[in-house]
Amino acid sequence: MPQGQPLAVPDDGLTTRQRRNRPLLIVHTGDGKGKSTAAFGLALRAWNQGLRIGVFQFVKSAKWRIGEQSVLERLGALHAETGEGGRVEWHKMGSGWSWSRKHGDSEDHAAAALEGWREVQRRLAEKRHDLLILDEFTYPLQWGWVEVDEVVATLRDRPGHQHVIVTGRRADPALVEAADLVTEMTKIKHPMDAGQKGQRGIEW
Amino acid sequence: MPQGQPLAVPDDGLTTRQRRNRPLLIVHTGDGKGKSTAAFGLALRAWNQGLRIGVFQFVKSAKWRIGEQSVLERLGALHAETGEGGRVEWHKMGSGWSWSRKHGDSEDHAAAALEGWREVQRRLAEKRHDLLILDEFTYPLQWGWVEVDEVVATLRDRPGHQHVIVTGRRADPALVEAADLVTEMTKIKHPMDAGQKGQRGIEW
Repeated sequence: MPQGQPLAVPDDGLTTRQRRNRPLLIVHTGDGKGKSTAAFGLALRAWNQGLRIGVFQFVKSAKWRIGEQSVLERLGALHAETGEGGRVEWHKMGSGWSWSRKHGDSEDHAAAALEGWREVQRRLAEKRHDLLILDEFTYPLQWGWVEVDEVVATLRDRPGHQHVIVTGRRADPALVEAADLVTEMTKIKHPMDAGQKGQRGIEW
Repeated sequence: MPQGQPLAVPDDGLTTRQRRNRPLLIVHTGDGKGKSTAAFGLALRAWNQGLRIGVFQFVKSAKWRIGEQSVLERLGALHAETGEGGRVEWHKMGSGWSWSRKHGDSEDHAAAALEGWREVQRRLAEKRHDLLILDEFTYPLQWGWVEVDEVVATLRDRPGHQHVIVTGRRADPALVEAADLVTEMTKIKHPMDAGQKGQRGIEW
């Protein structure tokens, strides 16, 4: 995408530089493919610029995205070895968050999702990352496991310069309202409609 | 995205395994963000599975995407050093395709785009890659620099098991018709609308 000019300059008392450097809240929603994939693609840029990346996957079964996880963790290891790029941490709810002592024994998805969000809140307050990817985070919001208003307030008031990307279908209107950049991925055609299943290198 | 069941099993005489392993033609189109980024995100999965990746950027000025290029080329170097992942080649029209003797001296974008497509055709015939990303390739099609019918015929009849991803706005209906997976990225909200310009780690 070419670098364009803004359509309007808001009367917000900020200089262009201040506005340009405002951290972004990005939402990838819709029923189509590419919501998470585009978020991990953005993580490539962020890594290349030395940003500290934190991925938080709010899905119970994280068999998927294993390719992106492997590669981003490999890039994180490269950073540790050579100083290239940025730090990478990848956490998934899967069978319990990596930081949790309850690892592996909880079947309470609602509690696990809330625990994940509390950790994200702590990290935002500590400014631990420069880019946080909250993958599939719309679902715990939709199911009422995590309060939308609290999430929006926390994200709006986050300190420092932390970019946040939220992915998942049916993003809450309050989250969309708070976001700076919202893209909807719409399915036009999908191979499953023609009887084709997922395959190696494409779906995982 | 969880692994679902196909909605219908077509009467095409193929087994599920044959259908599953059919190479995909993927199109990312629409006015929203994430078309190219999701393609490069898919390249992460492909690299992780050892697929040979070829990126062809049909844009004249390739200042953008530099982050993805750096990281994917770094992953390609890692493959050369350690055997991890897959091979990566990245070619851009920029100031002339890397394989071309006319490097740097051509201002004829139409000729350059057609030259890029001819190279892609040769590589498809030779099965040089397992995943080809034709980034921003909808534009040369739209402007008539490359014939849509020829592109569709070549892609339909490509030999072996080569996945192809085409990105760009306003994908031609014939290309959409030929594709297996088409996603439209729609802009719901963009920071430029609020006077914000692109920034490091997010836009490049």
